[in-house]
Amino acid sequence: MQKNISLLGSTGSIGIQTLQVVDMFPDKFKIVSIAASGNKIELLEEQIAKYKPKIVSICNEESAKRLQHKYGSGHTKIISGLDGVVEAAVVDDADIVVAAISGAAGLIPTLAAIKNGKDVALANKETLVTAGSLVMKEVKQKGIKILPVDSEHSAIFQCLVPEQVSSIESIVLTASGGPFRKYSLKMLESVTPREALKHPNWSMGNKISIDSATLMNKGLEVIEAHWLFRMDYNRIEVVIHPQSIIHSMVRYMDGSILAHLGFPDMRIPIQYALTYPERWENQLKQLDFTEVATLTFEKPDLQKFPSLQLAYNAGKEGGIKPTVLNAANEVAVEMFLKGKIKFLHIPMLVEKSLQKSGQIVNPSLEDILAVDKSTRIETENVYTKGLINS
Amino acid sequence: MQKNISLLGSTGSIGIQTLQVVDMFPDKFKIVSIAASGNKIELLEEQIAKYKPKIVSICNEESAKRLQHKYGSGHTKIISGLDGVVEAAVVDDADIVVAAISGAAGLIPTLAAIKNGKDVALANKETLVTAGSLVMKEVKQKGIKILPVDSEHSAIFQCLVPEQVSSIESIVLTASGGPFRKYSLKMLESVTPREALKHPNWSMGNKISIDSATLMNKGLEVIEAHWLFRMDYNRIEVVIHPQSIIHSMVRYMDGSILAHLGFPDMRIPIQYALTYPERWENQLKQLDFTEVATLTFEKPDLQKFPSLQLAYNAGKEGGIKPTVLNAANEVAVEMFLKGKIKFLHIPMLVEKSLQKSGQIVNPSLEDILAVDKSTRIETENVYTKGLINS
Repeated sequence: MQKNISLLGSTGSIGIQTLQVVDMFPDKFKIVSIAASGNKIELLEEQIAKYKPKIVSICNEESAKRLQHKYGSGHTKIISGLDGVVEAAVVDDADIVVAAISGAAGLIPTLAAIKNGKDVALANKETLVTAGSLVMKEVKQKGIKILPVDSEHSAIFQCLVPEQVSSIESIVLTASGGPFRKYSLKMLESVTPREALKHPNWSMGNKISIDSATLMNKGLEVIEAHWLFRMDYNRIEVVIHPQSIIHSMVRYMDGSILAHLGFPDMRIPIQYALTYPERWENQLKQLDFTEVATLTFEKPDLQKFPSLQLAYNAGKEGGIKPTVLNAANEVAVEMFLKGKIKFLHIPMLVEKSLQKSGQIVNPSLEDILAVDKSTRIETENVYTKGLINS
Repeated sequence: MQKNISLLGSTGSIGIQTLQVVDMFPDKFKIVSIAASGNKIELLEEQIAKYKPKIVSICNEESAKRLQHKYGSGHTKIISGLDGVVEAAVVDDADIVVAAISGAAGLIPTLAAIKNGKDVALANKETLVTAGSLVMKEVKQKGIKILPVDSEHSAIFQCLVPEQVSSIESIVLTASGGPFRKYSLKMLESVTPREALKHPNWSMGNKISIDSATLMNKGLEVIEAHWLFRMDYNRIEVVIHPQSIIHSMVRYMDGSILAHLGFPDMRIPIQYALTYPERWENQLKQLDFTEVATLTFEKPDLQKFPSLQLAYNAGKEGGIKPTVLNAANEVAVEMFLKGKIKFLHIPMLVEKSLQKSGQIVNPSLEDILAVDKSTRIETENVYTKGLINS
């Protein structure tokens, strides 16, 4: 049976690797719609030519117009704007939606897909971070499946024995520790975006690479795991494991721990999200333990990487706080990438935003979108000035 | 609901640890029968007084008579001989039989339990090594469950997703490498039983400790895994992992590996065999990854530890060969423990026995018992002389 896929974020890192998985099983998968920013227009055109999706949504309106002109008379419908992304997400014949748009921008189309009863392969962790309560309510109501694409959450998903969920002691998220694991606080003061983008193990997009360097990525994953597996924050552990061979673990109350291991290759969890509950043989390299040789573990250093603690705090406070955390972090990371702030300013900006924000206990989608927007504006304009003047 | 347990081998290492598990859940488990060698008579008497089993079977006839005298008028029936062990194994109200008699002596009572429709918590690996084909036929026919107690097989059992068995690439048995992992061949020539009994991680009986030192234990486990999980020998890997934290793994065709981790504490797999499909909270120490720090992996050295290769070969040849392997090894280990042969003579004797033995393609139980007996005699009397005279 062929599985029809809607791919949101087709030109990003996860999108490209999703298409590599599709290429491994050309008879079993079909791309029916794609959504892309339009920033990598050549790649997008190649994708249109190769996969011939019915719907292509492009954020960038100019690019959309140009491609409409080019493909308008053909089989592919080119659309744009947020409505366009939503249309790509809810296209009738999609069996599963790969939600791989980076950042909070992924929230509305992902939510639209869920409301339309689509199963979602979730690579966009901000969806659950900013709107976990709302999203999980819809997931439950529609009876759809969220299949995690993040290697950590995919690992936990694979180590969870459904009948034994009530016997889980904790889940253990592993973290590589990022490129600055061994840096002193002093050294962290002067690191550049270029250095921060060099992730030791995984090939990833820019935003998530910086989040890995600050450990905010692990913090967002803690909040995502909280929602995905309905796990209290005090039952979510983080352990630094620099080799990224153990992708995460589930600790049971009887002393057993189940772990998922493998090469750090995102195509493994992407493929599993698409083939679940089956596993399909592929040509990806298998882990050879005699090559691996050594696996190590450390406690995360919250002095050097306060973002992880900020995420735990925001998650525990709940309400609108994770939305603030995420929005402030997205802005801070972007400013760091543009050279406007220093690396250590990122957690400082996030902390400031969390301190200044009010609380909304049961935020609606409107509340979330409004706070997301206002947090971005204040973080960029107000708090950054305070930071730089201080 | 209370689970009634028949415990065969109650005064051995696994038997003692099984009773520790029973003690953790006194309301949920009841010991209805025990079988013991009678060599540790004080311990056995303590067990009788504490657990008040209906049936106690003692190999040693003199011990049996003495205890009959003492307990004859009470609630506990004392019996002896092989018939006695079988009676303990098939006692009506037992829900599960813990088969923890060491060596080939465990075969007949274990088989009797299976034929009587009892689920079996299998700690005696020789049962499947010597008579895997016969035993698995009975298991299938009776529809009973074999619940592995060996930490490796329990690990694999826990990492097997029943719906994904056809997608398994291989199973990966981990081995500590034993106390002589770093010894040269030269150093192995003169090791003593006392040194060989010092297992780095696990607290175990004498026979299995020596088997760990020669790697024959892993070889027997390979054969056991072949039968238990119906896995071809070329799909069973062995990797040396000196810390014994990863207890074994299942490698799937999509690049995913599921592993079981925990403290090297036999009470964890024993408990799981008794509580399956549930997991019960206990007070055993949980693994702290920041204490573990480092996990390493190596290839097994088949030059220094040829027993592992001998076991693979015997398993692949099949028929009566694994029976010969096991019998010759049991005799050789016993002679080594008694100081009659040297450490490196153990695999030499096993190899000699395998070379000299004929083949029986589909051995009956009678064939197996006859070859087991004749192999023991020839190994001890004929081959040993050749070895010592050579």
